[in-house]
Amino acid sequence: MKFKFEILKKDKNSYARTGKMYTNHGKVETPIFMPVGTNATVKAITPEELEELGAQIILNNTYHLYMRPGMDIISKFGGTQKFMNWNKPILTDSGGFQVFSLAALRKIKEDGVEFNSHIDGSKHFFTPEKVIGIQETINSDIMMMLDICPPYPSEKKYVEKVTKLSNKWGALALKARKSDNALFGIAQGGMYKDLRKMAIEELSAMDFDGIALGGLSVGEPNDLMYEMLEYTAPLLPIDKPHYLMGVGTPEDLLIGVKNGIDMFDCVIPTRNGRNGMAFTSRGTISIKNKQYTEDMSPLDDQCQCYTCRNYSKAYIRHLFKAKEILAARLLSYHNLYFFLKLMEKIRASIAEDRFLEFKKSFLIKYNGG
Amino acid sequence: MKFKFEILKKDKNSYARTGKMYTNHGKVETPIFMPVGTNATVKAITPEELEELGAQIILNNTYHLYMRPGMDIISKFGGTQKFMNWNKPILTDSGGFQVFSLAALRKIKEDGVEFNSHIDGSKHFFTPEKVIGIQETINSDIMMMLDICPPYPSEKKYVEKVTKLSNKWGALALKARKSDNALFGIAQGGMYKDLRKMAIEELSAMDFDGIALGGLSVGEPNDLMYEMLEYTAPLLPIDKPHYLMGVGTPEDLLIGVKNGIDMFDCVIPTRNGRNGMAFTSRGTISIKNKQYTEDMSPLDDQCQCYTCRNYSKAYIRHLFKAKEILAARLLSYHNLYFFLKLMEKIRASIAEDRFLEFKKSFLIKYNGG
Repeated sequence: MKFKFEILKKDKNSYARTGKMYTNHGKVETPIFMPVGTNATVKAITPEELEELGAQIILNNTYHLYMRPGMDIISKFGGTQKFMNWNKPILTDSGGFQVFSLAALRKIKEDGVEFNSHIDGSKHFFTPEKVIGIQETINSDIMMMLDICPPYPSEKKYVEKVTKLSNKWGALALKARKSDNALFGIAQGGMYKDLRKMAIEELSAMDFDGIALGGLSVGEPNDLMYEMLEYTAPLLPIDKPHYLMGVGTPEDLLIGVKNGIDMFDCVIPTRNGRNGMAFTSRGTISIKNKQYTEDMSPLDDQCQCYTCRNYSKAYIRHLFKAKEILAARLLSYHNLYFFLKLMEKIRASIAEDRFLEFKKSFLIKYNGG
Repeated sequence: MKFKFEILKKDKNSYARTGKMYTNHGKVETPIFMPVGTNATVKAITPEELEELGAQIILNNTYHLYMRPGMDIISKFGGTQKFMNWNKPILTDSGGFQVFSLAALRKIKEDGVEFNSHIDGSKHFFTPEKVIGIQETINSDIMMMLDICPPYPSEKKYVEKVTKLSNKWGALALKARKSDNALFGIAQGGMYKDLRKMAIEELSAMDFDGIALGGLSVGEPNDLMYEMLEYTAPLLPIDKPHYLMGVGTPEDLLIGVKNGIDMFDCVIPTRNGRNGMAFTSRGTISIKNKQYTEDMSPLDDQCQCYTCRNYSKAYIRHLFKAKEILAARLLSYHNLYFFLKLMEKIRASIAEDRFLEFKKSFLIKYNGG
């Protein structure tokens, strides 16, 4: 089927909106947070648990799956959904971000990017067309174009060059698509507003199913990230889904939604969970802290998740100190619940025209007010 | 309540029997395999999954819990059941085995054993009375007496000395008990039949609720282990539960049951699972092997467990190679299912007077016949 996006409700007092995406593997209500399943698994969590948590769509990493297990195997299974036992929508990134953050000896050429694998050093060449082919093998419901993500800080000249090249690659990606899977463009432009605007204008004129903001939250100060976001997000074509890639904290999600972002993904609920951090309605806590040694209360007394209904901070701290896998499970589960529940509350607040109020009261409590 | 054991059915052609143990946290059908939850968690598995797997009783390690999180915390929770969210029976070992296998600088004295913690080097002294107190704080349904486990090989003179001392400690343990939790004796004796006999005779005359065989599967050749087991197990008092500690493989369980063993515990389903080994009806496989790279079949096509109903060898191998936590979860789950299902089949075969047949046909298939 052809991908479709419909806007259900627009907030009166901000750019926030609720919507619905229709994909080959089902509907997705926006704004949405997508748990990251890099290696065709959301770390420490089963697909059944993801459903229980209310996850509607997850992300797979093209670069990682291309390297391991490789496309022969994924192809044999007819995509990652069957491979990993997840029957709902999947979004894949293009691999571009990993090439520029993980791989070695990368070399940008006019028609693609050459690099060495971070796993075995083997040499590879990604082109806009090739990464579409890979994503069609993965059979992801939403594919991303190959782009070049400039690091922070970068000279304007360099950013301009790679942003223009990215846009050119976007057009090639669209031409290369053979499936009816959705394909999103990625607007780069670094921290330069005119380049961001140029990128969005060019991509908006193309036949993408959605537009993403790439190259934010790549090391720049938070204030600058928010400034760029607030300038850029409202420029995105109103009738298409807006995706803020690789972001972020609960604050980031709220500010993103306020500016019209519909989709987010980030590793922090699971990665920070494995490192002993829990997100709670009163801010984050580190379960490593000595103060929790004998604490019989749950991670968040306002949370109804499996972890909080059954386990104490003292127990989770004990598991964490003893390096038990169950610590990673319980913390990852709780954090994903926190993020997915936050998005559910955001959607409800937009539907009821009280998003800004919700945002304010959430942040006051979250920041210890 | 007072611990009770009843024998339901005795096999006509072997020492095998089925029975039922009544503990403070419920009934346990024997013969039983007890998953090991060293740090108050069966590694990578939740209590709900244990119930789903049919686990009736699990083991906690006294030594580990005493070291971390410590008895102050366990006491605050009223035992490990509440601490770890497991409401069924728990058996605790005495800590003796860990003192002799993990701890440093141990020194056996007439009234106990001095040692240094393997975690922080701190100095400790375990007495027969103290470890009963610890186990009563843990509130385990079945406690074990402090014993001395001689390594293999050991001089007869040494084995005789520590076996006699262990028996003396057994009498002190019984005197120290203040709860109605069950208390089992542990018969040592190394690889010396007369010492084994002596140990069992002395312990049988005491008021233990069950008797365990300790000091087997400690590095001796398999044949010798089986020889000692076949000689020793039938000497155990018929009306009390017989527990073979720290054992073992599926073959070991079958041979144990044949000789009248009612209870087993071992880390191999979970530890070997984490290391990439799966137990199947046709023997063990290593998921690391290249031959499984594109294998779309489950770990065991005759297995109905969650892992086998949903995942392929190729996917689990991929997870294992990518060091994903889900690999440990899926393999541990499958292996525990295999062990617990084996015990269920053993109980059914005894009830239907076809245990030796079952044993034979299981082993023919398991050993590739």
